[in-house]
Amino acid sequence: MKIKRVSHISIAVKRLESHLEIFERLFGLPHGEITDVPSQGVRVAFIDTPNIRIELIEPTSETATVQKFLAKRGEGLHHISFEVEDVAESLAMLSESGAGLIDHEARTGAEGKRVAFVHPMSTGGVLIELEEE
Amino acid sequence: MKIKRVSHISIAVKRLESHLEIFERLFGLPHGEITDVPSQGVRVAFIDTPNIRIELIEPTSETATVQKFLAKRGEGLHHISFEVEDVAESLAMLSESGAGLIDHEARTGAEGKRVAFVHPMSTGGVLIELEEE
Repeated sequence: MKIKRVSHISIAVKRLESHLEIFERLFGLPHGEITDVPSQGVRVAFIDTPNIRIELIEPTSETATVQKFLAKRGEGLHHISFEVEDVAESLAMLSESGAGLIDHEARTGAEGKRVAFVHPMSTGGVLIELEEE
Repeated sequence: MKIKRVSHISIAVKRLESHLEIFERLFGLPHGEITDVPSQGVRVAFIDTPNIRIELIEPTSETATVQKFLAKRGEGLHHISFEVEDVAESLAMLSESGAGLIDHEARTGAEGKRVAFVHPMSTGGVLIELEEE
């Protein structure tokens, strides 16, 4: 598998607006629009930095996995996302290597991209998303 | 303050070697040498990706803050590091903005760089390091 880049770092928060304000006021980092992703029960916004984007995620549904994360661990770093050429092919390679997968098939994530999540038990506690442009 | 880039994403682990092996085997990501940072009671190694480095940290002392993190939350994403022009000046600006600081003065971190940590209570649960080349 070839990782093209780390496309974003994701942070789970209770309220997007207050955190977007903090990153702008304290660190001078601008952000894009807030978008709803009803299929995953979340709202997201991206903060731009020169080499990587920081995604903020706020749950909008009690059953969203991000809501469960917040209830268990509180606000904080949630996952990192690797950009790959082909998510389906990467999942097949990971599966062959014995990695645990949350998604066995690519699904549609934020910005309409094809995404899939690898289970943190296989990656030292780090939730990793694979994403295809 | 001007953030030049996100210099690295940091992951707290119990054993560096096994995680370096996982990132190399599953994702084809190479890593550099393991170095000891006795002043902070840790060993660290950097994994290279095209746009950002991933730092793995293993505590070597029972009193290291990373050891406390592992005991409380387990292995996983630990902090992100912003590269700035001048850590001392950035700390002064953050302090004026009312941000909580862990380090009120820059100190020496991995690779001999000047670093300081901002308290996660001011940044939505995310531990942020400032780093100067």
